[in-house]
Amino acid sequence: NRPFVLLAGPCAIEGEERVLRIAEKVKEITERLEIPYVFKSSYDKANRSSIESFRGPGLEKGLKILQKVKDKFDLPVISDIHTIGQAESAAEVLDIMQIPAFLSRQTDLVVAAGKTGRVINVKKGQFLAPWDIEQVVKKIESTGNEKILLTERGVSFGYNNLVVDMRSFPIMRDTGYPVVFDATHSVQLPGGAGDSSAGERKFVPYLTRAAVGAGVDALFMEVHDEPSKALCDGPNMVSLEDLEELLIKAKAIDEIVKDI
Amino acid sequence: NRPFVLLAGPCAIEGEERVLRIAEKVKEITERLEIPYVFKSSYDKANRSSIESFRGPGLEKGLKILQKVKDKFDLPVISDIHTIGQAESAAEVLDIMQIPAFLSRQTDLVVAAGKTGRVINVKKGQFLAPWDIEQVVKKIESTGNEKILLTERGVSFGYNNLVVDMRSFPIMRDTGYPVVFDATHSVQLPGGAGDSSAGERKFVPYLTRAAVGAGVDALFMEVHDEPSKALCDGPNMVSLEDLEELLIKAKAIDEIVKDI
Amino acid sequence: NRPFVLLAGPCAIEGEERVLRIAEKVKEITERLEIPYVFKSSYDKANRSSIESFRGPGLEKGLKILQKVKDKFDLPVISDIHTIGQAESAAEVLDIMQIPAFLSRQTDLVVAAGKTGRVINVKKGQFLAPWDIEQVVKKIESTGNEKILLTERGVSFGYNNLVVDMRSFPIMRDTGYPVVFDATHSVQLPGGAGDSSAGERKFVPYLTRAAVGAGVDALFMEVHDEPSKALCDGPNMVSLEDLEELLIKAKAIDEIVKDI
Amino acid sequence: NRPFVLLAGPCAIEGEERVLRIAEKVKEITERLEIPYVFKSSYDKANRSSIESFRGPGLEKGLKILQKVKDKFDLPVISDIHTIGQAESAAEVLDIMQIPAFLSRQTDLVVAAGKTGRVINVKKGQFLAPWDIEQVVKKIESTGNEKILLTERGVSFGYNNLVVDMRSFPIMRDTGYPVVFDATHSVQLPGGAGDSSAGERKFVPYLTRAAVGAGVDALFMEVHDEPSKALCDGPNMVSLEDLEELLIKAKAIDEIVKDI
Repeated sequence: NRPFVLLAGPCAIEGEERVLRIAEKVKEITERLEIPYVFKSSYDKANRSSIESFRGPGLEKGLKILQKVKDKFDLPVISDIHTIGQAESAAEVLDIMQIPAFLSRQTDLVVAAGKTGRVINVKKGQFLAPWDIEQVVKKIESTGNEKILLTERGVSFGYNNLVVDMRSFPIMRDTGYPVVFDATHSVQLPGGAGDSSAGERKFVPYLTRAAVGAGVDALFMEVHDEPSKALCDGPNMVSLEDLEELLIKAKAIDEIVKDI
Repeated sequence: NRPFVLLAGPCAIEGEERVLRIAEKVKEITERLEIPYVFKSSYDKANRSSIESFRGPGLEKGLKILQKVKDKFDLPVISDIHTIGQAESAAEVLDIMQIPAFLSRQTDLVVAAGKTGRVINVKKGQFLAPWDIEQVVKKIESTGNEKILLTERGVSFGYNNLVVDMRSFPIMRDTGYPVVFDATHSVQLPGGAGDSSAGERKFVPYLTRAAVGAGVDALFMEVHDEPSKALCDGPNMVSLEDLEELLIKAKAIDEIVKDI
Repeated sequence: NRPFVLLAGPCAIEGEERVLRIAEKVKEITERLEIPYVFKSSYDKANRSSIESFRGPGLEKGLKILQKVKDKFDLPVISDIHTIGQAESAAEVLDIMQIPAFLSRQTDLVVAAGKTGRVINVKKGQFLAPWDIEQVVKKIESTGNEKILLTERGVSFGYNNLVVDMRSFPIMRDTGYPVVFDATHSVQLPGGAGDSSAGERKFVPYLTRAAVGAGVDALFMEVHDEPSKALCDGPNMVSLEDLEELLIKAKAIDEIVKDI
Repeated sequence: NRPFVLLAGPCAIEGEERVLRIAEKVKEITERLEIPYVFKSSYDKANRSSIESFRGPGLEKGLKILQKVKDKFDLPVISDIHTIGQAESAAEVLDIMQIPAFLSRQTDLVVAAGKTGRVINVKKGQFLAPWDIEQVVKKIESTGNEKILLTERGVSFGYNNLVVDMRSFPIMRDTGYPVVFDATHSVQLPGGAGDSSAGERKFVPYLTRAAVGAGVDALFMEVHDEPSKALCDGPNMVSLEDLEELLIKAKAIDEIVKDI
């Protein structure tokens, strides 16, 4: 029954300067609110809808920028890997290694991540039931690694739509591991914009408060200083301007739910 | 931005004594917590899965018992109508007239209810999108009645399952009318027990806190002194023993969400 | 293993002249193709999305027109009832009495229909699993009536969309009763046009051939001489011009599936 | 408008002897029925539910066995790749290279496959709408490869269930590429057996006839001489004993649909 942790940052590493600016700003907000904070950003967007989409700086450059975030702001960092080959290098920098939702059933990837000994955050696939995550957990546990986070990011609901089933948090927590709510991917309308996913940022505060009301151990959220200019996931990212108010309410609800 | 109202009582009017006992107990709890309370119970379960299911005492007897609840405890009451013919008699007793979810698209029923001038609570059909409710609202408004409540009770999600889409509250409130969360029907597994609907009472607290976190104007909840012996909807009704704790948390979250 | 029967006609009784014209034309086509034919049309559209929608001529006038179809063309007729009170008069004219999908769980309506002794065609609710229909069957059987048809018309799939699960035909036929595919309501996009349901007529031939391939006992189809001017369900009705070609293919597939 | 092609074989390469036996038997049946045949089997099951599941012989051994099938029976072969690194070696043996459904959005994998110049069969992810496949097609076309097949294998429908939307065939064919129906994965109940996917083999004939009725260019089907002993996907594979009857009906329906 500890207060929630925030995993947040821009969808993709768009450039060192921007990444450092966002990390600094979110650190400042979370310190003020006494919310433990892990910086998040991706070095490669490997599964975009379209071949034309922005991909990011790649593994090597990306990890260097993430290392700078760690050094400069003394923050732990989380990022996602997409191939087995990335696990080892990524483990040298990342505190939390994330398995993307589409890849949550790829045994070798999950096992390679587990073997690094890092904390593993699995995003539950949009095609999985909450109880299906137990098999993913067992794959990671088979490596001896029991530092696992389980993230809800919405489940397929008809075409080009996701729905967040709030029952998934207690069901996934029955595995014994902490559960995370991904507030910004959950408002995606996958493929909803033809050659990219649309998103409904306006629902982020509602779903965030709802998930914290249901009970979560961490909040995952993509944030940006200028979402409308972001190179990926702009339509669903939260503006830095709105972050503090969102977190204040979430923290207050969290304290009620957990009797803190 | 007013505190939520509670609409609660046993699924069906099983007998006068039990109804009065439950009304008294819930009134006592809600007075202590300063939550406005409307007593709910049904005189006829007209759409049970099975022909063998308990139906209730019928319109005439049922309304008499509801009138006793009003007289004895000075409580407003809500119940549902299933045919046009019931609207007029029901309006003599009911403060809020409810349209069942399966019947939410039946124009004549909705219009007949609207014409009584009572407050109308429409349960959104399991087959409707949140924005579809606007057309139902217009049917009621066509009678000159603008006292309308809109209830989320879960939407079809595959077979024998419902999911609560927390986005539905802000979407339905865009009509300008208050929104209600039906916490106990939302955990039904429709048809899940073969000849009746199964239910997962254990999820009621999670979904209730989530919905209040998202933001609702009222909570609807079926409660019983002995759910395991209830003649309908036992698997999803909340035990009177657990009600107070549930409401305390809900009220605290509600106050944060609404800055009360 | 008998060839499929066709249940077809305009969505609503728009007027006597048009109804007779359509009946005559479909009779001519089905006689040429040796397909048993039942004329279908509704006298009241009781559950339209919008209060503004066309409703039809009502019970009394509507039944008179249906009687003319019977007299003039020696055709059996099918239509739907919406209230218990309609069952008795409707039974004097209708050969098959239909329970609308939204009303398929209303016990009293189903029982009232069953008691008339007419063949009862139940449209499976968009919110029901195929195996849920067994409980509806039992309600009708409780009246001693065992002349039952079970219709698939699509199941809720996300918002404003339906999907036809072809597994539903063998599952529903396990009840021992014939199964019907409603080819035109299955391509509705419910509520998809804001104040009315949109529809995708272009998919009717694909779904019809698919359903006949899976195996059905009857096809239900709304047809019109000028769908673009129809007063209801225009976007999904089949044009009379296209009917014959559709039926020729369906009949040929049916004969293969059933080894006729 | 050419007759459908059959892509079939055991789920996994369980051993050389069995693979050759099945290939020989299916070849014999398809030659008799004059159905073009491509042998299918997987050398690695990379995304099983459970860490305990059978994986197969791996890339090198598996390709050798597939090469024997080609040499001995003069059959083209199809198999799936799971990492970019496999594309080149696999291309030396495979005639059709398949992208697994869960991986259908992984840009690098799809591009690597496209670059081999082989025919690429993309299984549409259970989380994609039929029109979303156009973006996958563009990724492959970006490599200059325009030999593409698009496979429907069911879409997420609630938890642990898939539904086949027969509209997906005409929608996907609008891209200009042939469409395939995967008849055996479509009857999976993903995760339905806890640590593996359950399956409902009994529905394969219904869905196959339905899909051919809707109109497909190829049928994909996993077959086995002893499905109950199979090391993967036993519950949904078709027994060799039942294959011929299934294909006879499918071929007859196909000829009607395509006016062959």
